[in-house]
Formats: sequence, structure tokens, C-alpha cells
Amino acid sequence: MNCKITHDGFDVFESIKTASVRSGIKKKGEDLALIYFERQATFAAVFTTNKVKAHCVVYDEALLKNQQIRAVLINSGNANACNTNGYEAIQEMTKAIANHLNIKQSEIFIAQTGIIGEEFPTKKVINALQELKDNLGKNTQNLARAILTTDKVPKIISIECKYADVVFHIGGVAKGAGMIHPNMATMLSFIATDLSLNQDILSKALKESVDKSFNRISVDGDMSTNDTVFIASTNEVGESICEENEFYRYFVGKLTECCVYLAKEIVKDGEGATKFCEVLVFGADNDEDAQKVARSIANSLLVKTAIFGKDPNWGRIIAAVGYSGANIDVDKLEIKIGDSLVYSWGKPQGFDKVALLEYMRSNDSIKIYINLNIGGSNFNLYFSDLTNEYIKINAQYHT
Amino acid sequence: MNCKITHDGFDVFESIKTASVRSGIKKKGEDLALIYFERQATFAAVFTTNKVKAHCVVYDEALLKNQQIRAVLINSGNANACNTNGYEAIQEMTKAIANHLNIKQSEIFIAQTGIIGEEFPTKKVINALQELKDNLGKNTQNLARAILTTDKVPKIISIECKYADVVFHIGGVAKGAGMIHPNMATMLSFIATDLSLNQDILSKALKESVDKSFNRISVDGDMSTNDTVFIASTNEVGESICEENEFYRYFVGKLTECCVYLAKEIVKDGEGATKFCEVLVFGADNDEDAQKVARSIANSLLVKTAIFGKDPNWGRIIAAVGYSGANIDVDKLEIKIGDSLVYSWGKPQGFDKVALLEYMRSNDSIKIYINLNIGGSNFNLYFSDLTNEYIKINAQYHT
Repeated sequence: MNCKITHDGFDVFESIKTASVRSGIKKKGEDLALIYFERQATFAAVFTTNKVKAHCVVYDEALLKNQQIRAVLINSGNANACNTNGYEAIQEMTKAIANHLNIKQSEIFIAQTGIIGEEFPTKKVINALQELKDNLGKNTQNLARAILTTDKVPKIISIECKYADVVFHIGGVAKGAGMIHPNMATMLSFIATDLSLNQDILSKALKESVDKSFNRISVDGDMSTNDTVFIASTNEVGESICEENEFYRYFVGKLTECCVYLAKEIVKDGEGATKFCEVLVFGADNDEDAQKVARSIANSLLVKTAIFGKDPNWGRIIAAVGYSGANIDVDKLEIKIGDSLVYSWGKPQGFDKVALLEYMRSNDSIKIYINLNIGGSNFNLYFSDLTNEYIKINAQYHT
Repeated sequence: MNCKITHDGFDVFESIKTASVRSGIKKKGEDLALIYFERQATFAAVFTTNKVKAHCVVYDEALLKNQQIRAVLINSGNANACNTNGYEAIQEMTKAIANHLNIKQSEIFIAQTGIIGEEFPTKKVINALQELKDNLGKNTQNLARAILTTDKVPKIISIECKYADVVFHIGGVAKGAGMIHPNMATMLSFIATDLSLNQDILSKALKESVDKSFNRISVDGDMSTNDTVFIASTNEVGESICEENEFYRYFVGKLTECCVYLAKEIVKDGEGATKFCEVLVFGADNDEDAQKVARSIANSLLVKTAIFGKDPNWGRIIAAVGYSGANIDVDKLEIKIGDSLVYSWGKPQGFDKVALLEYMRSNDSIKIYINLNIGGSNFNLYFSDLTNEYIKINAQYHT
């Protein structure tokens, strides 16, 4: 049951076409993208938990009661949130797309990212639709680039798997950078599969996978109004999976692999990030406490700046454990950075300082292990360091 | 009932002497300070809520059951936390101080700040005690300077008040800078009064005042292992206040004024801060929700970097309101920056963009008003912006 991993995204599906163009929402570069399904596809999505939601999120949430989708329109440069014309903008755009592609208005999913509070330039999008349609083809690379904001690298995955003689594919893209929060924040991700699954089971699979991937990353602790992870099945392969059987579990495993890859790419491409970090918490009293400790460390500005400074400052780590709100016993606490045990059962350890400093200096990937030694719950979280470049990007990103 | 505000700290009290010296804990500068009470003083204190506590905090908490104090020893450069010799260090130091000053070992309060996890250089402190004793005098300026770490400006207040013909004083100092958290984090503050109060009522007054001052500031959201706010009464003025009468309320008001002054000075001197900011939340469903919204905004890296960039990016503010976890109704939400109403009852407003930009540019002090318009609870919080300089300080502060 080997899998073949490539980075072709939607291009592995014959019945899915993509396109991107410059519509003029952003000051430069392409800013509008389309995913087109030649036949109706089953779909599911999860959204930001922010109580201030962009118009597209409100629109899409209502759309979920439908079973089928034909197109996803994505724009960068304008979040279409907290403005006065957002609702009308979506009505006009979906109507125009429906005409152009000869599909139903109710089969169009909308995702948006960019500045909050600006009026949405509907006309620019509508004027670009013909060109967008004309461009439809195997264009995942361009699509992945068009949805970026302050992130730099297109994030694309595709995978070919075989289960009981059924060969199926999963492929998708993501966009991240700033405002990334443990609870899945402006990040967008679009994933497709040709494996046949009904909507309920597809939705369940997405939630399970997101919980182990996009919900375990942190760049700055802020959470956006627009976060969306979307999945569609073209239902071209296999008999429809309708229950949590073994094939479902296999699919969820593979989907999670894809989501973890994209989530890690988002952290690596976090605004100004120089280090890719992971904190692994073991031995917590309960799952919630394990999460609290991981998030407290991943969101600590002092830990993040220490890692940027290549400093194995475990004092800042232990302080973050202490204020996490989790149940801890300092006398049982164990902290490891890379291979160096720095604190164990209430005592600082005589570790090799030169080796640890070398680890901080020469690795792009930093691992922090926390063992609370009081229970059986674990949690892991990916995060980035905090750098001058982050400040520069976010102090200069003007409204 | 006018008050006279000065910046003499403990120098306004005849029976309190202070001193500071260089003991060599820090690489340069004075790092050891002493507050000496000529007669026994009643005292109270509040400490960090971090579950990882420095040895001095554990020691002082036990000390609180005593009623009287004669001396406070403070060092910077070493937090005396998570090390192996911390407990012994305090035993040896307090014994030596008791001998030098001819007071009881149990009448000595210890406060410490600096790096976590390093062995404590007890000998250096003991060797410096004679010089420290010899320096005792009206030295609040030097003391306030010796307890600084990465903050730059001594923070000192003194106030002379009159209530029903009783003239009394409050005076004190504080140290802050990094690791400042809404829940009173490495910050130290030492305050004295000559007004007579019993320990219970002094403790109550301190908690009330801290709740409206030091618990309402945020620099980076981290919380230290060493935070301490200490108050002592020399009991030289008035009849002892033993209950929450009118005089008590007057005293708490004045003590709060002093604490708010010191707390604001900590924020102004926050690591790398260029702007002093205040968020005022109104109309929340309950007190907890009002706090959640204020803290969500004050801790948002995107809001803090926008303010550093002099950008009135209200989209980031509204996003932070949305993910605060508080009960909100977007259609009732109102946001004001300075005098500009930017968002009202669910709609962005046609405010004067040039005027608002000018406000962001020319003011060192930025005010953000949030009205949730759904209830009667309010909360305010002081915070700083997030700058290149913060990153530089914290990435270069090496262990």
C-alpha cells in the first residue's frame, strides 16, 4: 500500500481545471483564481471560529446544506469583511460566474483573503471572469501563487494511493503566512479527491484531518475572519464510502498526511520566519492541559524571539509552562531541546552547552519536548520564530 | 483634600532608608538594593500567578504569615528560579543580612529578577552587604535604577495627602520592561506608607489597587516567575485603620493613583515601545467579557505592529474582538480610534482618514474605544506597540 507523493495539486484530476488571472484587486500580480469541476462534486468545509466573519464565510456556511459544487472562486487582496457592499458583491459575482460557466449560482463556493473593511471591487472581478474561464487548464502552480498574500512560496501537494485495488488521488493547495493561529486562522486551503465519499463522511474526514494539521500551527496567535479549508470529491473512484469503515480510516490517514504537509509549509513560510519549530507535550493530566502547555510555548513572544536569536533559553520555556494554566508539578517537569535534556524532575541538568548552542545555530528545524510526567495526554504544535522581518511586514502592511 | 505629587519615592519617609551597590551579578552596573525600615513595619504583598515560581516568591509567601518586616533585599541579573541552590542562597543571604543590620532573619523580604535557571551567586551578594549597609540613606533614585533589567528609566512616585486633618504619605518604585502580562508579570514594585493600617486591611488595599493598575498592563503577554508587588506601613501617622471605612476608601484611591502611575510608566518603558496605548471596552455582557476583548486587542501582534507602523488598521482590531471569546453582536459593535468613529452598528464609517492618520502619527499616546453595546460592563488596559527594538532586545538577551 505504497503512496506516490507529487506536487501537482489539482492537475492530477482529469475532471478538475484551474485558472488564475490578475483582476486588479491587488496592486500587482495575479489575485483571482478559479477551481472548476466538470461534473458536480460532493463538498465539505470548515471555517474560522472568529465571531467576526467575512461575507464569504457567512455565504459558504449557508451553502453547505447543498450537496454539490461546480466551482470555487478565490481572490486575494480584499477580505470582503466588515464592509458595506460585501453581500451584494457575492450575489453579483456568483450570478456572473454562473452565466459564464453555465452552472447554477448555488454551486459556487467563494473564498477571500486580504484587507478587512474595504469595499469590494466587484466590477474588477466580473470584468476578469471571461479571461479566467479562457485560462482553465492544468494550472495549479499559478492558482497556488495567485492566492498568496504575504507568503512567498506556493504550497501544493498531491498523492496517489491504493487501497484494496482501488487507486485514488488527493490533491490540494494552501495559503497562509500571517494571522496564523492554533485554531486555524487566514489560511485558506483547497483539497480534492477522486475517491467517492458521501457528504457526511467527507465532512467528518475533513474535520479529523484539520484537527491534526491546520489546527496545530501558530505563527502569531491572531485569528482571521476568513479562514477556510475546503474539500471536494469528484466521486470518480470506488464505491461511495458512507460509514467509518477501514477504507475511511485509510483515507483519513492519507488526507491528514496531505493536510499536515500543507500546514507545515504554512509555518515554514510564516511571515519573517527563520526557524520551523515543533513543541511536543507529553504526560499531561488531560488533552486540554497538553494543548494549553503547547500553545503557551508556541505563542510566547519571549520563546519565539529566543529561537530567532538561536538561544536555548529554557527559562522562558519553563515560565511559559508555568503560566499556561495547565495542571503541572514543577518537581516532575522535564524539558528537552533537541537531544539536550535541560530540566528534569525539578532540577536544571548539566547538559552540553556547546552542543545545544550548535543545535540552535545549525538547524532550521527546532524541537522542544515537554514531559509533565503526571498523566497520559499528549499534544504537538508547529510554530515559527518571531523576527525583525515579521515586524517589518506587519508594520508596513498599510490599510 | 488636595494632594502633592512628587517623585521622591521612599525619601519622603524619615524612618525608611535605601541603598544600592554593584555586587557583580550583572555584567555591569548596580544590581543589589536594600530598603531598610528603622522600626518594624506592617507589610503585605501580591505575587505572580505563574505555577513556576522563583525561590524568593515561595520564600516570601511563607513570610506573609508574619506581621512585621525590617528590610527588603532586591537583586537584578538573576531570577533565582529553577536552579539548584536557590533555597540555600536565600537562607544564607537572609542570615547574613540579619547579622549586618542586627534584625531578625524572619523580618527580611527578598525580591529578585533576571535570568531563570542560573545558579545564584550567593557569595557576591554577601560580600556586598557591608557596602550596602554603609550606603543607606535617601537613595530612592539609585535604588530604582539598580532594580532595572532591560528597562531604562527609574519609575518613582510619592504623594502627600490629607484626610480629616491627618497628613500621610505614599511612596514607591517599580521595575518592568519585558515579560509584562495583563496578570502582573516580571515586574517588581515596592511601596510604603506612613499611614497606620493593620495587615489585613493593608493587604486588601494592595489587592484592590493592583487590580486596577498592575493587572491592567501588557507588553508582550508573557508572565514571569518573579512578579511581586510589596507594600509596607511604618504606622507613624493616624490611628490604625482596621476596617473598610471612609478613610480606607480614600487611602485605596490614593494608593491606586500611585500604582496606576507606576504601571503606566512600566508600559511606556516597555521593551522597544514607541507608543503608549490604552484600550477601553464598554457595554460588555459581563466583566469577564470586557476583559477578554481588551486583552485580545492588547495582546494581538497584528494590532501592536499596526500601531508601531502608525496605521489605523481597524480591521485587525475588529478581528481581535471577534476571536476574543467574548459574547459579541457584530451588528451592534462600535470602534473608535482617538476621536475617529471607524465602525458603528455593523458598518464601517466614513471617517476623516487624513485626520486619523495624523492622530496615529503625531501622538505618543493612542486610545482605542470598543463599545459592544450589549451590556453594562467596562474594562480598560494599557499596552505598548511591538517594534523591531523588542525583537532585537529579546533575540539578543542571551542565556
